[in-house]
Amino acid sequence: MSIITIIGAGVMGSALSFPLRENQHTVRLVGTMLDREIIEHAKKTGYHLNLQRTLPKGIVYYQLEELEQALADVDLIVGGVSSFGVEWFAKEIIPQLPAEIPVLSVTKGMLNFPDGTLLSYPAYYEQKAPGRHFCAIGGPCTSYELADLDQTHICFCGKDIEILRKMKTIFETAYYHISLSTDVEGLECAVAMKNAYALAVTLAVGLSLKSQGKIQYNSQAALFAQSVKEMQRLLDLFGYNADNIIFGAGDLYVTIYGGRTRKIGTLLGQGYSFEEAMKELDGITLESVVIATRTGEAVHTLIDAGKAKKEQFPLLLHVYDLITKRAKVDIPWCDFESELRYEP
Amino acid sequence: MSIITIIGAGVMGSALSFPLRENQHTVRLVGTMLDREIIEHAKKTGYHLNLQRTLPKGIVYYQLEELEQALADVDLIVGGVSSFGVEWFAKEIIPQLPAEIPVLSVTKGMLNFPDGTLLSYPAYYEQKAPGRHFCAIGGPCTSYELADLDQTHICFCGKDIEILRKMKTIFETAYYHISLSTDVEGLECAVAMKNAYALAVTLAVGLSLKSQGKIQYNSQAALFAQSVKEMQRLLDLFGYNADNIIFGAGDLYVTIYGGRTRKIGTLLGQGYSFEEAMKELDGITLESVVIATRTGEAVHTLIDAGKAKKEQFPLLLHVYDLITKRAKVDIPWCDFESELRYEP
Repeated sequence: MSIITIIGAGVMGSALSFPLRENQHTVRLVGTMLDREIIEHAKKTGYHLNLQRTLPKGIVYYQLEELEQALADVDLIVGGVSSFGVEWFAKEIIPQLPAEIPVLSVTKGMLNFPDGTLLSYPAYYEQKAPGRHFCAIGGPCTSYELADLDQTHICFCGKDIEILRKMKTIFETAYYHISLSTDVEGLECAVAMKNAYALAVTLAVGLSLKSQGKIQYNSQAALFAQSVKEMQRLLDLFGYNADNIIFGAGDLYVTIYGGRTRKIGTLLGQGYSFEEAMKELDGITLESVVIATRTGEAVHTLIDAGKAKKEQFPLLLHVYDLITKRAKVDIPWCDFESELRYEP
Repeated sequence: MSIITIIGAGVMGSALSFPLRENQHTVRLVGTMLDREIIEHAKKTGYHLNLQRTLPKGIVYYQLEELEQALADVDLIVGGVSSFGVEWFAKEIIPQLPAEIPVLSVTKGMLNFPDGTLLSYPAYYEQKAPGRHFCAIGGPCTSYELADLDQTHICFCGKDIEILRKMKTIFETAYYHISLSTDVEGLECAVAMKNAYALAVTLAVGLSLKSQGKIQYNSQAALFAQSVKEMQRLLDLFGYNADNIIFGAGDLYVTIYGGRTRKIGTLLGQGYSFEEAMKELDGITLESVVIATRTGEAVHTLIDAGKAKKEQFPLLLHVYDLITKRAKVDIPWCDFESELRYEP
């Protein structure tokens, strides 16, 4: 059995304790400064306040100042921070970690740069701490359902297949199924994009609630298909393997059905302005909003440089305008139409 | 304005009257022998008994024996039969149609042959009536939501782009958006397969209802991703353009959320045998069951001939076993795992 230290006691980091404890590993859950109350409560009761589930028995809980103890003799570190904690994790935490121990990151998202490039979080960590080994999890998985032991199939990515195989034996259970990929940037790009496109698809939920008083699926399906099309084009634009669309499409599917991204998309579709929608969400910035903004900026830069065409990304650019220009929802349906002439 | 005759007054054929009447075309709706009551009722009241909607004003209704009148000076014929009426349509109706008038078919599905080939309905019609021009509609669209004017994006396919463009001008409205493709077999294959895979994805609905008493999405998303993967492989296996996966994925999305395919998948997932599930559906054979059986047979034939591998289609073959061998649901989750080693 191995010793696994999860840093960040948010819902996803904490939910990973289920397969780990099922496989009888030693699990140490370390809260960040944002998780103080969660850790305190879980220490006493075993109950996770945000996940709203009792965590598996046998987890050892730590506050951030106890990190050193939590890292003693560790075999694997899980980076469980949200995308808003990535810079902090790179600057404050990584230097404290034993250099030879691989880190598996659950954080989805990408950073963008003025030249139009996007960078995955594992690649960013490697830039900040060269020589260390960072892997990541991509694919469809909500933390709540993982905690309820729903069948789940995700993908671990990293550069070293042997390390990935070892991680797979640590995590795999009868309900947690793991594919492996050495294409880190491609997978991370696909599963980051899905957050932006889940917001886009759920605009149709709001639109149909507003116009019909019920949820309809023709319009959602049209946006879903357009999303898959644009996600494939983004993979292509950034030079990644198109096979990653499989995990991107699955991840898009699951993200449409839960959480705050669906809520903001629905509100915008119902006619709320971006400010009004954000107010309904208590002003909490969503990962989907961040990735839509970053990807939109990257695509605009590449359009300006003549490396991409506006016509290829009408849905993404509309979402970008909703967020950054406070535009009203007006889905560019006609721009989705294509004419495919195929010579047999 | 044009004269359009729709043959088959089922829900989809009839729903197409909405964009057509919006564009002020003359619409003639002809019932088959199965639609006698629908036509009679609609003639008197304008209400469609199965679509459960009032049809647009101005439609002229015909019983089948009035077909000749309904075809006078017609510009375009819509073939609105279900897949169970395809042979009948080819044998009894096509010979009565004016040879120079194009036919646009709404029927999704494929025929299979002992050598493992699959044939789309437009191609089948062309075999039966050489020299005539058959087109088809693929992509995500439920008839009920089209009748409610939900935003819809589908694809018209046919061999002649000029005829397709003309059809597009006839049908297109502010809510009915039309792409065009000359890749008939590829599009029809993608949108036929989605029926089989919608049954597969909804097995997870039944499984989670049974185990958790609620609907979960991790498992649905895992099956959705696997479905997209296998549909891409099927397009590849049968030699079709992989781009068609876009409409296939959208069509899969909309089919999961409605109708009897979701019902049978859910029942099977809950532990019903195929016979029991069919009883709940009043013994009515579903298109999804037919296409899953036909595609499963075709794939088995190609596996036996060494042209395909069993490992490529674990989900389809499991659904095939559920239907033809009365197997119990036991999703082969581990067979979905892959190891992608990518050389940068």
